[in-house]
This record gives sequence, C-alpha cells and structure tokens, in this order.
Amino acid sequence: MDATEGLEISQGESFIDVKSFFESAPPLKNSDSITQKVKEFIYQNSQFSGNAKSVGVVCVTSGGTTVPLEQRCVRYIDNFSSGHRGAASTEYFVKSGYAVIFVHRRGSCQPYCRYLPEDSFLEFFEVLNDSEIQVCHPHATVVKKAIKEYHSAVNGGFLLKLPFTTIFEYLQIIQVVATSLSCLGPRGMFYLAAAVSDFYVPWESMAKHKIQSAAGPLDMRLTQVPKMLRILRTDWAPSAFCVSFKLETDSEILLQKAESALRKYQMHVVVANELATYKREVIAVTLDGKISIRKQSEDADVEDQLIKLLVEKHNNYIECCGMGEIITFGNRMSGH
Amino acid sequence: MDATEGLEISQGESFIDVKSFFESAPPLKNSDSITQKVKEFIYQNSQFSGNAKSVGVVCVTSGGTTVPLEQRCVRYIDNFSSGHRGAASTEYFVKSGYAVIFVHRRGSCQPYCRYLPEDSFLEFFEVLNDSEIQVCHPHATVVKKAIKEYHSAVNGGFLLKLPFTTIFEYLQIIQVVATSLSCLGPRGMFYLAAAVSDFYVPWESMAKHKIQSAAGPLDMRLTQVPKMLRILRTDWAPSAFCVSFKLETDSEILLQKAESALRKYQMHVVVANELATYKREVIAVTLDGKISIRKQSEDADVEDQLIKLLVEKHNNYIECCGMGEIITFGNRMSGH
Repeated sequence: MDATEGLEISQGESFIDVKSFFESAPPLKNSDSITQKVKEFIYQNSQFSGNAKSVGVVCVTSGGTTVPLEQRCVRYIDNFSSGHRGAASTEYFVKSGYAVIFVHRRGSCQPYCRYLPEDSFLEFFEVLNDSEIQVCHPHATVVKKAIKEYHSAVNGGFLLKLPFTTIFEYLQIIQVVATSLSCLGPRGMFYLAAAVSDFYVPWESMAKHKIQSAAGPLDMRLTQVPKMLRILRTDWAPSAFCVSFKLETDSEILLQKAESALRKYQMHVVVANELATYKREVIAVTLDGKISIRKQSEDADVEDQLIKLLVEKHNNYIECCGMGEIITFGNRMSGH
Repeated sequence: MDATEGLEISQGESFIDVKSFFESAPPLKNSDSITQKVKEFIYQNSQFSGNAKSVGVVCVTSGGTTVPLEQRCVRYIDNFSSGHRGAASTEYFVKSGYAVIFVHRRGSCQPYCRYLPEDSFLEFFEVLNDSEIQVCHPHATVVKKAIKEYHSAVNGGFLLKLPFTTIFEYLQIIQVVATSLSCLGPRGMFYLAAAVSDFYVPWESMAKHKIQSAAGPLDMRLTQVPKMLRILRTDWAPSAFCVSFKLETDSEILLQKAESALRKYQMHVVVANELATYKREVIAVTLDGKISIRKQSEDADVEDQLIKLLVEKHNNYIECCGMGEIITFGNRMSGH
C-alpha cells in the first residue's frame, strides 16, 4: 500500500508513453457519468467564503491497483493494500472541513467501517420479535457511531466514492478528477495513498484467453507503467497541493527515495512509510525538513496527526498562493 | 473463480513436488487452532442417524488464491473470483441439510450476504431517535432474511468459516480439512470452487524486499503449483465425494478439459463453466454423461439446481459405498 510510483514520471521520459498508455487502455466504463458526478461534487463544494461549506476538496486514493494478465481476465497482479490508511484519512479530512473524493479499490476498507468486522457484518446484528433489528450488545456504540457519521458525510455532500479495480481504471479516473479539480486552484488537494502498480501488460499485447498451464514454468515480461505524477503537476492540476506516499520494506532506502520523489515530481509532501511500521509511524518529508509522526496512544490513529499537519501545510500553501482570506480549519464534527 | 487446477496432479508427476511445496511453504498461522476447530465441527456433525443433525459434511472452497512475489509481500498474482458461486452454494448445501466448512478467500463474497451492498453496508441502515437502528425501507426484507439465515446456520453449528489469502495457506488448510474429513468416509464431500493459482514463486527463491522499479521491464519466471487433486483422492480423504470445477474463457476446449480432469484425477463430478456465462449456465460432467444446468428464471440461482443434482449424486454414492440406511435429503429451512 501507500506507494504512488504509478503517478511518477522520470525526467527523461516523454509524454508519449503516457499518451500511448491512455490510447491503448480499455475505455473507462461509465466515463460520462463519473465525470458528471465529479464536476457536480466539486461545484457544490467550491463556494468558499466565510460560511464555506468546505474548506477545500481533496482527492484521496486508496487500496491497490490490479494489472490484468489476460484480456478476459482470470489472473492479475495485485498490490497489497488494505485501504485502511485512505479510509481513516478520509474520515479525518471530513472532520477537518474538507470535501473528499474517495477513489478506492473495490472491496477495500471504507470510511467509517474500519472497526466493523471484515468478513461478515451479519455477526453484529440480530432480529428481535421477527422484525426489529438490534446490534449485538458489545458493538452497539461503534456501529451506531459509524452509521451516523457515514450518513452525515454523504448526506452533507462531503463524500463522493469512486471505485476502481485495474491500473487502467485508476489512472483514467485520476485524470478525470484532476482536470476537474484544477478549477479550484490551490484549494484542491491530492492525497495519493493508493498502491499503484509499477509494471503492467499493455492491453494490446495481452493474452486474449486464460493462459494455459502447460508443462513447465511460465515466463512473463512486464512493461513499466508510465509515471504520471509529473503530468498531474504540470498539466492536469498544476496548482493543486500534492501529497504522495512512498512505501518500502527496506528502511535503509526509504527516506532517500522519498526525498528523491519530492524533488523529481515537485510534490509538496511525500509521506514515507515502512511496511513493518506503517500503522504507527510515518515521516512527512517536505522541502523544509522531515517531520516524524507517531500514533499517540494504542487507540489513536496515526492519520489523526498526519491530517492535522497536512491541513496546516495546505492552509499555508493557499495563503502563499495569494488566495486572500484566511480560512479557519475548524472541527466540523466537534459541535455534534 | 471456479478452477481447481492447483489440486490436480499429472500422471507422471511424483509426490516429491508436493512434499517440497509443503516443506518450503511459510508455516500456516494458527495451525493448531484451525485443526481443532475443524475436528470439533466434524465431530459435532458426524452423529448421522434417523435424527441426523446433518446428512453430510461438505468442504466448499471459494474465491481466488494469491501468489506472493515478495516475502514481505507488497505485490502478488491473484486469480479472479468474486466468491459468489461458493457463497451461494454454501447456502443451498445448508438448506439441503449439510454442514459446510466454507474455506474462502478473505474479503470474498460470504454466504447470506450476496444481496447486500458490496462496498458499504452502512448505506442500508439509519439511526432513529439517537438510538434505534433501522434498515432503510426498500432493503428491510432482504437484510432481515440475511441476518436470520446467517445466525440460524452459525448457531445451529452448520457453518464453519475458514479464511485464506495465499496459495500456501489454501493448500495447507485443505490438507487439514481433508485428513480430518476422511473419518466420515463417503459422507464427506469436497466442492472445490476456489480459483487456485497454477503458477507460484517458491518461498525460498522469492525476493526478500519489495522489487524495485528500476528502468526497463520486469522479467519473472513462475513455477507450476504441484497439482494435489490426486493426493487428496488417494491419501488425504480417499472415500470422500469429490466435485471439482473447470473454468475456461474458450468454450472450444472447456468440455474436453473437464472430461480429462474427471478421468485423470478420478473426480466424481467436474463442473464445467465458461467465464462469459458462468452465472447462468454450468455443465456437470460425470462418467455417466453430461448434464447441462441453466438458471430457471432471472431471480433464480444456477447453484440451486446444481446443488440439488450433487446432493442426489452424493446420496447415490453413499448408498453404493454400502453405508446402509437411506438418508432423506430434506429441506432444512422449509419448515421455518
């Protein structure tokens, strides 16, 4: 999880790779309806003023992308990501007054569902007197809180959920969101926590049918996914505040890779995390320095502190960009 | 989904491959606790008599297995399977009087949850008067039915759920279940609907850290998963009734491959299905001939007819094995 290499583009790489990736990708299903939903959501959350509905719009990406190995897909390569980081962060962004476009892997962890059972939520409920539904006692508080907060976010118009599965869908959705979000200038934010595939099989060179398991080993050659982080920064949404993630299993190369991504792709923040410790510690790498963030107690989320920091950095960024009035990033939920 | 090649073993292949697969696999977590749960579940459902609690115990496998590409796993190869077939079949087996060991991919479709929303079941609920939970109107009937049937199956002791993710976990769990189930002789059944990986990277030759996306393509060599269907038939549970699945995207080779699997691995039934039509049509291939099964209406499940057929075949098989009394495969739920 939490890698964004798929959105990077190396210095020498031309935009031709990006162009040919999109041209050869299978068309995004419901593309028009997705574009319309995104535009409406952004429009409804773009009336920033003293009585602003939202203080900004953030696109949170979450979960791993898949790379199909066959056109009629039976097998695919996947990236590990529970989606917990993206789901938790979405909750804290909403709490901080943001509207969130939650671009998530189908079936990955969802906002407000983090404490509910993974496999079967039916465990949590019982039917009384043949009609009344009750939450089994020890879970009642957490389930009711989840239902209330979820409905408050959705009905308030602060949460738009867009699912993806493949790398093709993911990058096409990001393009739609980014080009739509560019109208908000610096009030738009990207928080790219999804684990994006580095390698893929171009659609045209893909096996049409299921690969047969004949005798002997299977040899595969995978092409690098064109890295689109720079095109996001230069073309799609050049004024948006950009936070990307760098996940490694080897702590020795982690910070060096995070700093390199910060400079190469002109990110505002790169969040460095290690597979073994990502749930309790991250390091926010910026041009001003590195800030280590640890969860403050067993019950706390590291995302709570992380989002507070990012909201502050984003606020400074908006001011620097000369957007005029100072916005108070209050606690939307605190009054309820 | 619905392929079981991972459990096959080719004629010439020696059991040494199987042995070395298990020896090099990372140890199954909670192995003792899983074994104990399985043994208890089988024991509780093995008191077959005129007042039998269950008419048999079936191990239903469901969802796809993953093949890790790195030891500290970020990337893996996955097989497509929603798990819908396994979940639906589990419901019909329970309804027919069976106890079901549901060996499923974590996060895949669960029995009694098939009609509930995929991404966020919170959509379905609302909290009234700050405390009472209600199901949003149009969904009330289906949600209440799901909760009741789920609790009835679990509390009655007819459903044991065991999750897996990797091919290593899957095959180790199948071994535990099969060797435990062998005590039931022909009353045990395997219904192997999981989509098992054909190729894997042996644990010892796997990259320790995340594979770096350096310049250029990635070349991979994958080894064939030793095919264990025969060892299941000859060693682990030789008297159990065995149903395997064959999924292809190419209809021309489907029946030929299903018949070949039937003979080679001495299956009792091979269910042939094609990716494009598997939700509405399957063909049950047996030594006596082929039976095509289609769903009977838009709201019906093809699994309803399929399980009825398999229950009948299993019943005949038990009689042939000389188990004495004839068992009536009644409809457990019909009286409720």
